[in-house]
Amino acid sequence: MKETERRPAVRFVSDRRAREPDTVAVEAALSISVRPPGSEEQRLGLTMRTPGNDEELVLGFLHSEGIIDSMDDILGLQANGDGMVVNLSGSSDFDPSEHVRRSTMTSSCGICGRDTISSLLHIHGPPLSSSIRVSHEDVSKAIELLRASQQTFDLTGGSHACARALPGGDVVDSYEDIGRHNAMDKLVGNALKQGEVPIGDEMVVVSGRASFELVQKALRVGFPVFVSVGAPSSLAVDLANEHGMTLACFAREDSMTVYSGLRRIIH
Amino acid sequence: MKETERRPAVRFVSDRRAREPDTVAVEAALSISVRPPGSEEQRLGLTMRTPGNDEELVLGFLHSEGIIDSMDDILGLQANGDGMVVNLSGSSDFDPSEHVRRSTMTSSCGICGRDTISSLLHIHGPPLSSSIRVSHEDVSKAIELLRASQQTFDLTGGSHACARALPGGDVVDSYEDIGRHNAMDKLVGNALKQGEVPIGDEMVVVSGRASFELVQKALRVGFPVFVSVGAPSSLAVDLANEHGMTLACFAREDSMTVYSGLRRIIH
Repeated sequence: MKETERRPAVRFVSDRRAREPDTVAVEAALSISVRPPGSEEQRLGLTMRTPGNDEELVLGFLHSEGIIDSMDDILGLQANGDGMVVNLSGSSDFDPSEHVRRSTMTSSCGICGRDTISSLLHIHGPPLSSSIRVSHEDVSKAIELLRASQQTFDLTGGSHACARALPGGDVVDSYEDIGRHNAMDKLVGNALKQGEVPIGDEMVVVSGRASFELVQKALRVGFPVFVSVGAPSSLAVDLANEHGMTLACFAREDSMTVYSGLRRIIH
Repeated sequence: MKETERRPAVRFVSDRRAREPDTVAVEAALSISVRPPGSEEQRLGLTMRTPGNDEELVLGFLHSEGIIDSMDDILGLQANGDGMVVNLSGSSDFDPSEHVRRSTMTSSCGICGRDTISSLLHIHGPPLSSSIRVSHEDVSKAIELLRASQQTFDLTGGSHACARALPGGDVVDSYEDIGRHNAMDKLVGNALKQGEVPIGDEMVVVSGRASFELVQKALRVGFPVFVSVGAPSSLAVDLANEHGMTLACFAREDSMTVYSGLRRIIH
């Protein structure tokens, strides 16, 4: 499956109209299952995602859910029809009562599977680096490079992006998806594959808003600095503050707003 | 609880920086439960939403899930701590195996609770009006009025909006929420309360993208025309086509792209 597809469309501009096939971001279902050691396959749920990097997506998702901490916790992944099955090793931390969901995660939903807000808020991750320092210039550069990496967005206007960036602003990895949480999961999944989790002195940069779910995923993997082009929610700000994460939003070339962790911003 | 809150922040503009408390959209958890006739209360799940119009949100959500079709299906609603409990009447269609979710719906997740894409795609709603006709000018007017209604967005830059509009473009009802599906649920919930479901000759207008989940919710309640400011996903286009819904996206003052149901567009 491809990341974009063409659809018939009619474009209206002022008084003119023209039949012009248009390119849209693909939204398609992916089922995620795990096979614990010596046990039957169990389906965790279904996510709506843009195809591509499904392996990374699933790895990042399992990490975010707390089922795996590293690649040592899995024996392998296999594609299976419309889904991915992950064979877990004995060191994984799979708990059917917590992780199996009779649920579908939409293209913009990333933390289904918890029953209470208190379990949501019981978030644990590695200590966040206290040595990283970034300037507004570094943040601007990262945002600019993230934007330059958005090939699906350029074609469709309909996808989110998420990147890892070094303190100087250079982007080292980036993913796109119709769901912002999926783009983050793909980023985390590839970091896991590369043995680069927990994350050290890096920023995570997102094209949209800073929601609770995205900050939670970033905390779980250890990003000390979270940069978003869009606005934060109240809970995103509170969560970042609680964990001492630096949260910089509305990031533009000439401006940004820092809601927490000001000590990591050079000024 | 309020829809917006203040948070300490530091604003960087060019070389200057200033401590300026900032207004953010509130993201907070709401638990949704039902009490079927003669039965115990059952929790359906937890949603992350912007407080305000919780009753409408819950009614719209129950309708979208297929649990209720009209206000006749409920005896009443009551706030209960961080949640809402809906007392169902005998005519409701609650099925614990289908509707109870061990899940949290995030601020941007609206269709959790289905286990397979086929059940997702088994969408049924009322017949869509084939008599409504709208011009590009009508669409532009509706978009402009939707934008004018976005008070929370004006304060925070961080919320979605959803409105009902008449064929001429006049907006008759609108809601904002940090989750696009919540804004739609609130809109539908109020239409239910007003006895205006199924929807007749009206457009639904959304401030963001047209995703599968939003098109599905709009179909369920009978909107014949769906207008979005942002891009559609592939599945949104396919679903609109399958049901004969008019889908107009990238709606601007001087342009828009129509992906299905061109017969309802005056040109």
